[in-house]
Parts: sequence; structure tokens; C-alpha cells
Amino acid sequence: MTIAHARASPAAMVRSFPLPVPMRRALDLAAAAATAGEVPVGAVVTRHGTIVAEAGNAMRGQADPTAHAEMVAIRDAAYRLGTPRLDECELWVSLEPCAMCASAISLARIARLTFAAEDPKGGGVLHGPRIFTQPTCHHRPEVLSGIGESEASEQLRHFFADRRP
Amino acid sequence: MTIAHARASPAAMVRSFPLPVPMRRALDLAAAAATAGEVPVGAVVTRHGTIVAEAGNAMRGQADPTAHAEMVAIRDAAYRLGTPRLDECELWVSLEPCAMCASAISLARIARLTFAAEDPKGGGVLHGPRIFTQPTCHHRPEVLSGIGESEASEQLRHFFADRRP
Repeated sequence: MTIAHARASPAAMVRSFPLPVPMRRALDLAAAAATAGEVPVGAVVTRHGTIVAEAGNAMRGQADPTAHAEMVAIRDAAYRLGTPRLDECELWVSLEPCAMCASAISLARIARLTFAAEDPKGGGVLHGPRIFTQPTCHHRPEVLSGIGESEASEQLRHFFADRRP
Repeated sequence: MTIAHARASPAAMVRSFPLPVPMRRALDLAAAAATAGEVPVGAVVTRHGTIVAEAGNAMRGQADPTAHAEMVAIRDAAYRLGTPRLDECELWVSLEPCAMCASAISLARIARLTFAAEDPKGGGVLHGPRIFTQPTCHHRPEVLSGIGESEASEQLRHFFADRRP
């Protein structure tokens, strides 16, 4: 692991090992998305340990049904690097990607996906169509899950609890 | 069907019924994409019978792995209509959408999908993950296929034949 670790507050250190910097950033982007009225999901693309693109969910703000955090971050990374092939990149997301985003990760040839919370209702990696297990999926990234899970789950619980009548 | 039909040349009329205008346009966008070095796929979004957005594949040109014709057209339609919900819209595509695009169609709540050629290797509607049949798929458009199939298949055959050594 070449990614440095974020310095955690003493209280956070009691609870868990400090998160990798990109996941810490993804969770902060998710929190910012919630403040903007979006479902709290954040995504970060790194290349050789450096952040090259990042985004929060922006479907409402951009009036774009495809503007999931992962899609916006992948598109921006490709734009910044000048290539549609992100085979030297990793994606860090606060929530299990849906089928659209998982397919985009495969199309972009991203090397590794790390996500925090699982999404039994909308996820497309460990749930639903399990995109990377499909015989017609031609690129499967390495997948890690659970890093930052408790904070991501709490963000989502809090967001939807606030919106229930 | 409220969509007018394109006027076909006499030769084309011998072979088949004139195509609906949006599919005729999608096939022309696919041909233009091929000329630009992209895999020939074109997509058109209509609303109440009027074209509101259209695109050809643009992954290479835009250095964007997500720039499939369908995605670009959906994003543009949402931008033009000022909403991420395209529930009064139809999508016309020259090739069966992949899992990414099929998921985006569902997320955008598009009412009807019409595509020309099937894609056994990369499709995500009738093949692979069959996105709209997944229990976790919350919006399923009406799906029509085969309209313009022979021309779309010929475009793809020609494109890939030209690129083989």
C-alpha cells in the first residue's frame, strides 16, 4: 500500500485504524453531497498513490441521472489523464457501486476498486447483477470492501432518516 | 406511433419498410461515428415524438470511457430538459445497450427503448446481466428490438472488417 494514512482525531483512533487518505476523502465528499441534498456518496480516483479526480453524487445538482460520484470521478480522471483507459488507476467509493458504475469501472479498465458500505438494494458488485462475475465482463478489477463501512453506513442512515415523514 | 417515417430511397423500399425517423437518425449518427474512428453506434432521445438529444459513440474523441452514444444522449437530454427524470422520453439506439447504458436507462426512467442490432458479446439487455430482469432493477422500460437491424449489423461488420490485419 503506497497510500499514506490520514491523521485521525484521538476519538476516531479509539474506534478504528486510520482510514487510507483516499477513502477519508471519499467519505468527506459524501458528507458534502448530503449537505447539498444529494444521497451521500463520494468517490476518488488515484493513480500511483496520488488523487487525480474526485466527486460527490451530483444527480440533482447537475440534473443528470448518470452523475453518480463514481461516474463523475471516472470521467474527470480520464479527461485529466487524456485517455479513456485508466488501467493504472484505483477507485475509492463510500458505497458499493451500482450496475452502471460497476460497468463503467470495467470499461475504464480500473485496476482496483475499494468501497466502504455494501448496498444490497442498489449495488451491482456483490449484489444484483454482480457485474464483474458476468461471463461477458472483459475486465475485472481487484475488489476490496468494508474500509470505512461504519461511517458510510451512518451517513446514509442519517440522510434517509432526515427525509422520512 | 406518433413518430413520422423517413422517406426511403426506392432501393431501400424494396428491402424493407421505411425506418422511424429517430432510428434512421441513430443509424446515420452511427455511420458518422465510424468515420471518426469510433465503433459505429448512434443514439437518439425523443419526447412526445420530437428529437431532444442525439449522439454517436465518442469514447476516443472525448477520451471518456463512459461516452457511449446512449450515455451522451441521455445526459444531453436531461440537461436540455432540466431534469434527471426522463420518464416521458424514448431512447432509440443502433445497438443493444451494454450493462452501463441499460442501467442508466433505468436510472433515467426512460419509458421505451428501441434498438436495432443485438449484441451477444457486450449487450446488457437481452444478453449478459439482462439488467431489466434483475430483481433490484426498479424501473423497466418497454423494449423493442430489430428495427434497422440489418443496416446496424452491416455497419459494425464493415467497421471491424476494416480493422482486422
